[in-house]
Amino acid sequence: MTDTARKHVDFNGRIVMIGFGSIGQGVLPLLRRHIGLAPEDIVIINPDPAPEPIAAEFDAAYITEGLTPDNFRDLLGRYLRSGDFLLNLSVDVSSVDLARYAHERGALYLDTCIEPWLGSYVDPDLTPSQRSNYALREDMLALRRELGEGPTATITHGANPGLVNHFVKVALTNIARDLGQPLPSGDGKDDWSGLARDLNVTTIHIAERDTQRSQTPKNVDEFINTWSIDGFYSEGLQPAELGWGTHEKALPPDGARHDFGADAAIYLNRPGASTRVRTWTPEAGPIHGFLITHNESISLPDYLTHRQDGQVVYRPTVHYAYHPCDSAVLSLHELAGRNWEMQSRKRLIVDEVVDGMDELGVLLAGHGKNAYWYGSQLSIEEARRLAPHNNATSLQVTVAVLAGLVWAIENPRAGIVEPEEMDHERIMEIAAPYLGRLTGAYTDWSPLTARGELFAEDVDREDPWQFRNVRVV
Amino acid sequence: MTDTARKHVDFNGRIVMIGFGSIGQGVLPLLRRHIGLAPEDIVIINPDPAPEPIAAEFDAAYITEGLTPDNFRDLLGRYLRSGDFLLNLSVDVSSVDLARYAHERGALYLDTCIEPWLGSYVDPDLTPSQRSNYALREDMLALRRELGEGPTATITHGANPGLVNHFVKVALTNIARDLGQPLPSGDGKDDWSGLARDLNVTTIHIAERDTQRSQTPKNVDEFINTWSIDGFYSEGLQPAELGWGTHEKALPPDGARHDFGADAAIYLNRPGASTRVRTWTPEAGPIHGFLITHNESISLPDYLTHRQDGQVVYRPTVHYAYHPCDSAVLSLHELAGRNWEMQSRKRLIVDEVVDGMDELGVLLAGHGKNAYWYGSQLSIEEARRLAPHNNATSLQVTVAVLAGLVWAIENPRAGIVEPEEMDHERIMEIAAPYLGRLTGAYTDWSPLTARGELFAEDVDREDPWQFRNVRVV
Ligand SMILES: NC(=O)c1ccc[n+]([C@@H]2O[C@H](COP(=O)([O-])OP(=O)(O)OC[C@H]3O[C@@H](n4cnc5c(N)ncnc54)[C@H](O)[C@@H]3O)[C@@H](O)[C@H]2O)c1
Ligand SMILES: NC(=O)c1ccc[n+]([C@@H]2O[C@H](COP(=O)([O-])OP(=O)(O)OC[C@H]3O[C@@H](n4cnc5c(N)ncnc54)[C@H](O)[C@@H]3O)[C@@H](O)[C@H]2O)c1
Repeated sequence: MTDTARKHVDFNGRIVMIGFGSIGQGVLPLLRRHIGLAPEDIVIINPDPAPEPIAAEFDAAYITEGLTPDNFRDLLGRYLRSGDFLLNLSVDVSSVDLARYAHERGALYLDTCIEPWLGSYVDPDLTPSQRSNYALREDMLALRRELGEGPTATITHGANPGLVNHFVKVALTNIARDLGQPLPSGDGKDDWSGLARDLNVTTIHIAERDTQRSQTPKNVDEFINTWSIDGFYSEGLQPAELGWGTHEKALPPDGARHDFGADAAIYLNRPGASTRVRTWTPEAGPIHGFLITHNESISLPDYLTHRQDGQVVYRPTVHYAYHPCDSAVLSLHELAGRNWEMQSRKRLIVDEVVDGMDELGVLLAGHGKNAYWYGSQLSIEEARRLAPHNNATSLQVTVAVLAGLVWAIENPRAGIVEPEEMDHERIMEIAAPYLGRLTGAYTDWSPLTARGELFAEDVDREDPWQFRNVRVV
Repeated sequence: MTDTARKHVDFNGRIVMIGFGSIGQGVLPLLRRHIGLAPEDIVIINPDPAPEPIAAEFDAAYITEGLTPDNFRDLLGRYLRSGDFLLNLSVDVSSVDLARYAHERGALYLDTCIEPWLGSYVDPDLTPSQRSNYALREDMLALRRELGEGPTATITHGANPGLVNHFVKVALTNIARDLGQPLPSGDGKDDWSGLARDLNVTTIHIAERDTQRSQTPKNVDEFINTWSIDGFYSEGLQPAELGWGTHEKALPPDGARHDFGADAAIYLNRPGASTRVRTWTPEAGPIHGFLITHNESISLPDYLTHRQDGQVVYRPTVHYAYHPCDSAVLSLHELAGRNWEMQSRKRLIVDEVVDGMDELGVLLAGHGKNAYWYGSQLSIEEARRLAPHNNATSLQVTVAVLAGLVWAIENPRAGIVEPEEMDHERIMEIAAPYLGRLTGAYTDWSPLTARGELFAEDVDREDPWQFRNVRVV
């Protein structure tokens, strides 16, 4: 039996899926393929009736309703039982409220992002700090402290956040091997943060280049993306956020610390959708990406913070450097010109993608071999061969959802867990067959490469990996 | 006889055209149509043999050679006689050297941009100030002072620079009319600068949105544009330059004055290709454009500088705000990611354009009706109906070249002239039939519209049209 046909686990409960957009539709075939379930045991709740035929194709019941703060307990109460799995793949539905509800019901839970209820991402009455992923994560951590033990709730387990958090551990292991550095004996937080410190990994980019293209060029007043347009819009308008490394010499002029919580990350007083950074991927070479906020930019630096005698002695700078598909770059440019007033038309490109690849990985830099990228290079052609209803972008997410589900079923009493606390080898084992080429590559590129040739630039020549050098101004 | 068939003038000399790219190929049919010439009296000198068939189609002789500082006198000497017309539509050939040579030969001259010889736009041994259009214009003005009277040399007479300089006079006239302000009796520099001051036009954008599209999306490592890719690359890497208005409260942090010349313009210590500004056009609404340096950003504010008793009392801020075609926006984004190392492939889109419009005009702001855009809205369909071998972008240029040629033939002893010194009504008369819809539109949009909603922004709330508000940071 091949790896893309194997049943990883049987599940006796029902999977209640909330939302059925690009990720929900892409994950459904994988659930049917890899999890032993009774035919009637997938229920999808989604306000949009359009994708119901895809649900029917895979024998899933379809409830055309949306969750709100007022109705979600009643609505979920009709379908979710103790021992079931609440799979949250929606936008605009509070992850914290759903995780709490799953806990109360005795159900397992998974999401791919900590979402708030509709509107609060772009609520001008909230401060940037309150609208941040940092704040959303602190709410989730507070819930974890409150609830303590209980059924497993795997939070933020898509591609990124999710898979890339595991990629970081693979990358650290590979760099240590290539530098002849011993690996830690354990698999705990201190082991990994100690390894990262010993290797002197000062900077981690989630470095992604999506080259998928449609044959139909972008129209004026249209937003195109390879995954959720609403999701990208919301996170694009949150403040740019990044884990703030101990090697950084000065806070950015528009940077600020939050006055609550774990303090591993800062935010910039501007939207990520207008904040560009320099990064590198093996296929694309040097590129400009957008510093879009993501949960991994906060959980990873928190996890990798190394303390001695209670003092922080090491933490890497961590952020997303996202080059979305070309049409999405143009969509962002248009959106910025409109002062962030959403375009009136949206186009999600899945079936109409004609070629391209999603190159998604982590770039670990500052160590003895300068920089190392590790990740997935998945072409649209291969994604289509591997699973229906996916493009390259969604498949990297949906296989991570599958892997997170399997892990939760296998480890059903772990309480609320972040990706860093899971077994990365088990996740990689499940995900790898769907990730195209898994590539590791060193580079001598740095954010100082070819700088200051035609114009003097304000760079730190001593330390290539200062965020000041990475940022595009 | 329709306006697109009328012979405007007879010319007894020969037209020697240097360069035969997007503009040269587009202008040739117009020369044949509108200027009375003997069949053998167009000679094209161009190092690239590929477009020769188009020359043949219009009975033009074709010499496959390139001009260099060493050979240009010999080469031109073989074809250019006294009373001929030297039409410079090349890149990488010095406009100052060619204008001097035409003067010596007793020939008329026209170019669309003051070009230096190959390489100096991106010569890292020159300072940004030395690589500026300001410096190139000062060289040309020095030549004018040196040569004095002589055959007419119409410099920088394309669409922009060129047509748009005339649009400013039309716009000033229209605003004065709509505000019930009297028009000056004369047509001299002081009349126009006085009018602009009386109207309180503090800011002029050359505001352009090109929506032309190809059916074939941009490839990785490819630069696409609707006109010269080499030309756009060169000017994109010159410093951002702008006429610096008397209403501006503070020099930009990266701004600098030149230590020579007319002092009407400043430059920023960065390439225009990475410098974004807010602007507005009637079809597109609010957009982000690039502050690419152009000659009109220097000649217009110089011309509109108003003096009393020798003191500068008024000058508008003037700059280009260019939203090139979408594929060119992507090309710039990719180029910036590569730290300005040119892509290995170039694609000029003319015949493959499937739809779109070039909306090119001037936005005059700060006056009693806030802001007024005047310009040409020319669709690809209409451009194709009007003339072969053109897209919408090139036709706006080529008709300006035609009009400048006609004017020079009609006014053969004017010496070196900038567009501001020509008769704008005559130029508009010749050009108008080719410009699609000539539109004037007021707007209440300003660079303060919808600012600071989700994030605090450092804006000047007192004066919307401060450059600090216009600039995107
Ligand atoms: N971690 C990752 O790698 C990753 C990647 C992609 C997407 N995501 C996240 O996954 C989620 C889904 O992404 P997508 O691309 O499928 O989005 P999508 O926009 O394609 O679909 C969202 C779905 O949510 C549904 N929905 C909207 N309001 C709802 C409500 N009130 N109740 C129930 N359902 C509702 C919509 O009808 C739609 O089916 C988003 O939160 C997104 O940010 C995470
Ligand atoms: N003012 C305006 O509105 C405007 C608009 C477009 C272009 N332009 C300018 O017009 C010029 C031509 O633009 P284009 O779009 O046709 O450019 P293009 O790149 O399409 O063509 C340039 C031409 O110059 C020729 N050339 C290169 N080196 C040469 C040399 N050493 N001797 C002779 N010829 C040489 C090339 O072979 C080519 O035919 C450029 O300077 C450009 O900046 C001005």
